[in-house]
Amino acid sequence: MKIVDFRIHPIAIADPPLRSSYGLHAPYALRTIIEIESEDGVVGINATYGAESQVQALNLLKPRILGKNAYAITGHLQDLFSDIPGEDDTSQTFLVPGENPADTGSRAFAAVEVACLDLIGKSVGQPVCHLLGGRVRDKVPFSAYAFYKHAGGGGEGGDLREDEYGEALAPDNLVEQVRQMIKKYGFDSIKLKAGVLDPEMEIRTIRRLRESFGSEFPLRIDPNCAWSIQTSFYVGHALREELSSGGYLEDPTSGLRSMGIVKNMLEAKGVDTPLASNVAVTRFDDLPDCVRFQSAQIILCDHHYWGGMRRVQQLGRVCHTFNLGLSMHSNTHLGISLMAMAHVASATPHLSYACDTHYPWQSAKDEVVEGGRIPFEDGCVRVTDRPGLGVELDMDQLERGKERFEKCPYRKRDDTAEMRKHVDSTWNRVLPRW
Amino acid sequence: MKIVDFRIHPIAIADPPLRSSYGLHAPYALRTIIEIESEDGVVGINATYGAESQVQALNLLKPRILGKNAYAITGHLQDLFSDIPGEDDTSQTFLVPGENPADTGSRAFAAVEVACLDLIGKSVGQPVCHLLGGRVRDKVPFSAYAFYKHAGGGGEGGDLREDEYGEALAPDNLVEQVRQMIKKYGFDSIKLKAGVLDPEMEIRTIRRLRESFGSEFPLRIDPNCAWSIQTSFYVGHALREELSSGGYLEDPTSGLRSMGIVKNMLEAKGVDTPLASNVAVTRFDDLPDCVRFQSAQIILCDHHYWGGMRRVQQLGRVCHTFNLGLSMHSNTHLGISLMAMAHVASATPHLSYACDTHYPWQSAKDEVVEGGRIPFEDGCVRVTDRPGLGVELDMDQLERGKERFEKCPYRKRDDTAEMRKHVDSTWNRVLPRW
Repeated sequence: MKIVDFRIHPIAIADPPLRSSYGLHAPYALRTIIEIESEDGVVGINATYGAESQVQALNLLKPRILGKNAYAITGHLQDLFSDIPGEDDTSQTFLVPGENPADTGSRAFAAVEVACLDLIGKSVGQPVCHLLGGRVRDKVPFSAYAFYKHAGGGGEGGDLREDEYGEALAPDNLVEQVRQMIKKYGFDSIKLKAGVLDPEMEIRTIRRLRESFGSEFPLRIDPNCAWSIQTSFYVGHALREELSSGGYLEDPTSGLRSMGIVKNMLEAKGVDTPLASNVAVTRFDDLPDCVRFQSAQIILCDHHYWGGMRRVQQLGRVCHTFNLGLSMHSNTHLGISLMAMAHVASATPHLSYACDTHYPWQSAKDEVVEGGRIPFEDGCVRVTDRPGLGVELDMDQLERGKERFEKCPYRKRDDTAEMRKHVDSTWNRVLPRW
Repeated sequence: MKIVDFRIHPIAIADPPLRSSYGLHAPYALRTIIEIESEDGVVGINATYGAESQVQALNLLKPRILGKNAYAITGHLQDLFSDIPGEDDTSQTFLVPGENPADTGSRAFAAVEVACLDLIGKSVGQPVCHLLGGRVRDKVPFSAYAFYKHAGGGGEGGDLREDEYGEALAPDNLVEQVRQMIKKYGFDSIKLKAGVLDPEMEIRTIRRLRESFGSEFPLRIDPNCAWSIQTSFYVGHALREELSSGGYLEDPTSGLRSMGIVKNMLEAKGVDTPLASNVAVTRFDDLPDCVRFQSAQIILCDHHYWGGMRRVQQLGRVCHTFNLGLSMHSNTHLGISLMAMAHVASATPHLSYACDTHYPWQSAKDEVVEGGRIPFEDGCVRVTDRPGLGVELDMDQLERGKERFEKCPYRKRDDTAEMRKHVDSTWNRVLPRW
């Protein structure tokens, strides 16, 4: 299955002004859509991060990919994985996902792997999950992903999007946001992106969520390292009821050692809330210390930067072997990534928690898959027998995304710059903030 | 790709009177050949262990397989893996590979998975390695596998095979055996199956091998748990030079804790010989304690009982993550298994040692692949672009294997019974023997 073309399309999609400890989301998020075409005219597609560095890495791969067999190509790209542990901090404490130089190679590999799997699936009439060993579940559950946010739906000028959920900078309107999201998508677990308001306000938000939705909705809180060890313990202890039974405390503080200390402090007080991570643990090299220090009990995988779908399955095996839970991290994305996440999740037996998704924060106006937005049923995405990822590109919509990219003044995600521009001109990301 | 037939062929193949700490190989080894046929008449093949329990397990699967999609079937067979750690000893200390009830499900799963991969590969014109993510090496290195043995080439009556290597029950004729094997196959590493003679004789054998072949041929010794902790340390220390630089000490004693003690005793004396295992470590559940106790630094995988090719790739990832080496265990096998081993090894980046193979101990008269024996080049098996595993069944040869099975009086491997019959009527497998 000879590859004759590899097309790289940088796009920009409207993104609402969501807050996190990294700062503020800009009006547009950047993504890269790729197409890999075989000599018989079948096209495999995929989506990944959209920073300039990502586009460059993919452009560099082009000559290595053209003319090669789509089935075999990823075997030849093993050098993209750096096996030499660097001296630099490889975590995502100070870097947003997609901007970490430590996983540039993994991200490029994953982008090619998934596009090839889509191409193969479309060529032989099989869904991607079946190229990975066969799915173990038809429906992949996702979680409601609640954000403190400013008013606005994202985009600028003629691209302004409707503000579907409104402002949410206090417990009450955050609860309202979740209520709307659950009504629309049917999610049955809830994650709060925290590290934005004073911890007391975030504790209050979680408690209001519990009061509003009851204990059938597991709760997760993720301050992206905004807290000290002491504050992490304080919040974890205060929310010991609310975060138990299916919930978790995600990356409360930075570093594998500090995470482990928080876990041990909580355990010493009889609090068994598991810690989760996609900041301290971002690659296989992080896992031995994670196990040793008990830094995290749940790993939030992401095929986009863990090196593709097969590596996520392998991570699932590592987690199962070492008694770690597995869930899935998300970044701003469209339907192609959502379907890729669903396919790999469906073929990874050990996935033990509903996955994260930013999908509710995007709009039909930005979707690039034919037929528009991917439907959710009871909070789940259905993995069907449609070939490949089960979606095709809407070329008109892709064109609009490329036009937005051309107009967009930035070429990487910079939540600090955005925070300074709109909220506080002196803002810095101080860790720990509380 | 609908499966319309699943055929199970128990066969017997001649096997020379090889010795190990388990006892003596019987004149025939049992194997099971399977065929999975799709509705368009393509046939995928595979080979696995041949005990009656194995055949029964496969027969039980038949109704679950017929009518299903070959791409999807293994996703539906996850219940074959028991995730509940049993109270029983799950190691292979007292059971030969293929006779361990703890991995009955994994073995059945693997048998189906590989046959489906062969079927898919043959249907789409791709080698199995490319269905697994693409090969990272074209040639898979194997090691010379030397055995103390009695005179005889295996088989009985009209099936008696030529004794190609002759008796080898002392260092000198063992060295001669290895010389013959290296000349014929081109291997560049050597493994001695030990636990048969007095440890002093086995030490002498290893030293004679080193004198004869030099340090360019890494040496391995495997007594299958025949030694006490003290003897293991004694031999490991005595052979500290010979087993270093690419060699290893394999399963000297039984149990993860005892192996770890041997490793620590050796380290305390400055001996850095790695320990390897396919007895103490036979499934993922064994790995956390293996890491914790430093029981083994090299895992000898085997797709036949680890649960198939994708699980071997996953094991490779676990090993890479936890800084363990990876090599491959072998049992008496023919060309189908050899090619399956080569395909998965070629698509497992982390494989870091030449694989074991019993292939030199079998004869062209027993081979069931079309065209006869698989060729070796410089000790390696070449993984080509031929579809599937790259081999087809020779139906006449298969028929002869089935006839031998019918004539064969036993239905499981029992090296103790054979030892009593031919060597010592009072023999028992005493552990540790020395």
